[in-house]
Amino acid sequence: MKVLITGGAGFLGQRLARELLARGSLKDTQGTPQAITELVLLDVVKANDFGDSRVRAEVGDIAERSVLEHVIDDRTSAIFHLAAIVSGQAEADFDLGMRINLDASRLLLETCRQRGHRPRVLFTSSVAVYGGELPDVVQDDTALNPQSSYGAQKAIAELLLNDYARRGFVDGRVLRLPTISVRPGKPNAAASSFASGIIREPLNGEAAVCPVAGSTRLWLLSPRKAIESLIAGLELDSAALGNQRVLNLPGISVSVDEMVAALREVAGDAAVGRIVWEPDARVEKIVGSWPGRWDTSRAQALGLSGERSFADVIRSYVADEHIQIR
Amino acid sequence: MKVLITGGAGFLGQRLARELLARGSLKDTQGTPQAITELVLLDVVKANDFGDSRVRAEVGDIAERSVLEHVIDDRTSAIFHLAAIVSGQAEADFDLGMRINLDASRLLLETCRQRGHRPRVLFTSSVAVYGGELPDVVQDDTALNPQSSYGAQKAIAELLLNDYARRGFVDGRVLRLPTISVRPGKPNAAASSFASGIIREPLNGEAAVCPVAGSTRLWLLSPRKAIESLIAGLELDSAALGNQRVLNLPGISVSVDEMVAALREVAGDAAVGRIVWEPDARVEKIVGSWPGRWDTSRAQALGLSGERSFADVIRSYVADEHIQIR
Repeated sequence: MKVLITGGAGFLGQRLARELLARGSLKDTQGTPQAITELVLLDVVKANDFGDSRVRAEVGDIAERSVLEHVIDDRTSAIFHLAAIVSGQAEADFDLGMRINLDASRLLLETCRQRGHRPRVLFTSSVAVYGGELPDVVQDDTALNPQSSYGAQKAIAELLLNDYARRGFVDGRVLRLPTISVRPGKPNAAASSFASGIIREPLNGEAAVCPVAGSTRLWLLSPRKAIESLIAGLELDSAALGNQRVLNLPGISVSVDEMVAALREVAGDAAVGRIVWEPDARVEKIVGSWPGRWDTSRAQALGLSGERSFADVIRSYVADEHIQIR
Repeated sequence: MKVLITGGAGFLGQRLARELLARGSLKDTQGTPQAITELVLLDVVKANDFGDSRVRAEVGDIAERSVLEHVIDDRTSAIFHLAAIVSGQAEADFDLGMRINLDASRLLLETCRQRGHRPRVLFTSSVAVYGGELPDVVQDDTALNPQSSYGAQKAIAELLLNDYARRGFVDGRVLRLPTISVRPGKPNAAASSFASGIIREPLNGEAAVCPVAGSTRLWLLSPRKAIESLIAGLELDSAALGNQRVLNLPGISVSVDEMVAALREVAGDAAVGRIVWEPDARVEKIVGSWPGRWDTSRAQALGLSGERSFADVIRSYVADEHIQIR
């Protein structure tokens, strides 16, 4: 089986690649595991190939038709489309966000359509498709109302994938991801970057700025569970999804204050003391428009699950990243 | 004031042009009436200019950047974007629907953004953005779930306009129109074409095919009220719309059986006898996915109103089109 990951050099792309290589197989559309014979990692920078002969790391601009035609052929049977411009950057650079989050997503669907073999395509979407006056618990039939260009572009990509799937051009599915926390590495341009930073930096003995109020409610998912969900989402029986290809993934609903309390539980007062509270209206406006919780019964009925406690999420992070708590 | 109508040779475009010329003015963003000095009618065929020196009938492909740059300049202060590929045709020709309903709408917004003067732009959208499991009365916060490519393209155009408006590139508004009935003229490729045909043809002494069951519920608006609403929608105070630029217009909820009863009331049994019932699964699937009613309190609070009785709609049609009932 030939598999493509776009954004293959990114944080989730690299984790997903490592997990797929470790598993060695993916279920086909009949539910039968098939060996992964080729794993193409497309990104604007060369991805780590893990020294594995199954990996082909390709460098290219995903908004270029020729690049997509080069990495998708009629043997490509599973595509994880993770490449994106994050929320803060898409708000700062409108054209770049439109080009990658909208045009490239459409071009990817169009390339699949031209190939004609109806591959499985998984898009990731986001809490950012919601906004405005929201119920305490967002439902599957709550209207999308994005309050950022990133959210609008993700919502449009969802609609495109749904229609390409309905018409039989692709076997598509979209997973709406909660905000991923705790991400290792450096802060990024996502408005939600702090949701990892206020845990990661204090654990590393560094200061972290929290740009939102402690009462701000977030809907979170760990990287571990995110990767598990991406694979389960791709393997989901198409018939079980019916004509609604978008799925809200389970997450944990926590306030920033509760995140800080979990950090204290795991790493003590010293770590918490490294958080600097500096409200940033730009970030508060974007993050404050996102839902703090959504109904997950559909995802759970399809066998997808989330975490139970944010303290456990921090403990997983500490274990996975070999952090020495100081 | 310079005004542009795209789809200016179409049924609604021509009626709107005639009404604007008769009124002679449009309110500006301060609510002050300003004389219409130039009315540009863009379409793929040359629009009727009504022999009026204020009218400039332009022929061009709206998906071409140069065409839009030719008709939108920094004095264009109101744009009614009516050009569209109708539902049945967009389902039959996917690429054409994408090009006109999505690409051209985006290019129009982009042209306005490049001009930089933040013109008022009104898009029309449709019942077709809804679908799937719907409540009896669709609410403003009911999720869009289009079951046709036309509906998906209209939903995407709504999201684009909302984001371009949020960013201040245009002063945008979208009116979701009920199905327009009774349209004069010939049947078209819209899945809803019968909603006019089963009234219009029998009134003309001709047979009409009804492709859906009598129990099918439709959400209708007359051409008269549609034109009135387009003008009122363009003149709506931007501040009153806030960050939700999409408005569900009032309509009449009637079953096809009730439409037929209204036809009998106005034109008698002979007219009703000219309806031929021939179910068409393709049409039933598309039209059956649309809402039969939506909540109109927001539109009403903004001063927009609909009709009360479908028999009155037929009577207006008979009067406007000088029909002799036989």
